[in-house]
Amino acid sequence: MRYEEFTIEGRNAVLEAFRSGKTIDRLFVLDGCKDGPVQTIVREARKHDTIIQFVAKERLDQISGTGHHQGVIAYAAAYEYAQVEDMLRAAEEKGEPPFLFLLDGIEDPHNLGAIIRTANLAGAHGVIIPKRRAVGLTATVAKTSAGALNYTPVAKVTNLSATIEELKEKGLWFVCADMGGEQMYRLNLKGPIGLVIGNEGDGVSRLVREKCDMIASIPMKGDIDSLNASVAAGVLAYEIVRQRLQ
Amino acid sequence: MRYEEFTIEGRNAVLEAFRSGKTIDRLFVLDGCKDGPVQTIVREARKHDTIIQFVAKERLDQISGTGHHQGVIAYAAAYEYAQVEDMLRAAEEKGEPPFLFLLDGIEDPHNLGAIIRTANLAGAHGVIIPKRRAVGLTATVAKTSAGALNYTPVAKVTNLSATIEELKEKGLWFVCADMGGEQMYRLNLKGPIGLVIGNEGDGVSRLVREKCDMIASIPMKGDIDSLNASVAAGVLAYEIVRQRLQ
Repeated sequence: MRYEEFTIEGRNAVLEAFRSGKTIDRLFVLDGCKDGPVQTIVREARKHDTIIQFVAKERLDQISGTGHHQGVIAYAAAYEYAQVEDMLRAAEEKGEPPFLFLLDGIEDPHNLGAIIRTANLAGAHGVIIPKRRAVGLTATVAKTSAGALNYTPVAKVTNLSATIEELKEKGLWFVCADMGGEQMYRLNLKGPIGLVIGNEGDGVSRLVREKCDMIASIPMKGDIDSLNASVAAGVLAYEIVRQRLQ
Repeated sequence: MRYEEFTIEGRNAVLEAFRSGKTIDRLFVLDGCKDGPVQTIVREARKHDTIIQFVAKERLDQISGTGHHQGVIAYAAAYEYAQVEDMLRAAEEKGEPPFLFLLDGIEDPHNLGAIIRTANLAGAHGVIIPKRRAVGLTATVAKTSAGALNYTPVAKVTNLSATIEELKEKGLWFVCADMGGEQMYRLNLKGPIGLVIGNEGDGVSRLVREKCDMIASIPMKGDIDSLNASVAAGVLAYEIVRQRLQ
């Protein structure tokens, strides 16, 4: 279980926690306090659908660990990021060829949550996301992952292309979803594999695409361009599952 | 193209349009108007992320078709619901065995939009939703469908079980996604088919499940219970696509 709770105290710290997209489970506010900064925090909390409890000063003093709460204390959830090595070790311990998801700039927290959920059920050993231009493990991600975030490790890396290079040296093959590739049913996806999913609007970035060994295309019969990113991830992940079951 | 725009004028009509979940593309409001009912409409519009334009009375008079705008005019999008017969006819015209999606109570507009998008790309001939206990074609659905709503017909029916019965008489087979079924790869999904997707929380209802010829289960290797509804729909739809391509 990589989920734990801790408190964040004081106006700046709490406001910053909200704004950075941290998972705040509950906010305690000094009852009757009309100060501007506290009102700003309450507005942020409402925006994030956080549970707010207005309590007396005595209660805040009781909860406080530092004694300097300034009228606001947040209960934050901490999802620890994992290391890529841990994922490879988990695969080895299970005696399975590694199966990782690499998300090249997923921006929508609902998509990230749904993809972590899919990764868990498809038997993947972890999900790798980049540090920049991508959503992190926010409250919405945790919620839409339907609990999968507690089981499936997520690693954050500085440079996705460099990570792909390192993993290639450890024997992984990389397949990305993109138009103009080989139809996914004709590819061999049985070995140690990294499944690369692109950004919702722009798809897989050029640099990452160039590192991939295979480009898989999902057959498209319709009038529009592409599937929703989490649906595409699911369809490809289950093609990998199907081939591995054979 | 089943998309067109029309104007809704007057305070009650506009407010009702928002509250019923109609797709409002743009709202025109009399600049400087502080009346309670108009403020309520503006709040509703903000809640729905509708584009709001504050304009002078002359501009409103110009846009107005009735002359009785009371300071508010909305541009609404009309998505016409299709008939199930139209879907069967479309399949026949294309010389394809019918392939329909039946959604047994999808509540989240993001899921409905993503499923219509999947239906379009998987080559399905239409999506059938029930009148009750389900989200309709709202602005969010239109947006998350990424344009698919303009191509893939959606029908609304009073009783999903009755519709299944009628379609069975026309030669369709029905498969629903549920736990404890046969692994989807082992089912024959090549013929005229209706794919039934259950509600996000409760799955397929008992009555509808009993009408289905096959229960398909998606292999689950993980720790949690189920995939996101739109991901499950995508995985199953593409198993149908795969079998049909063989």
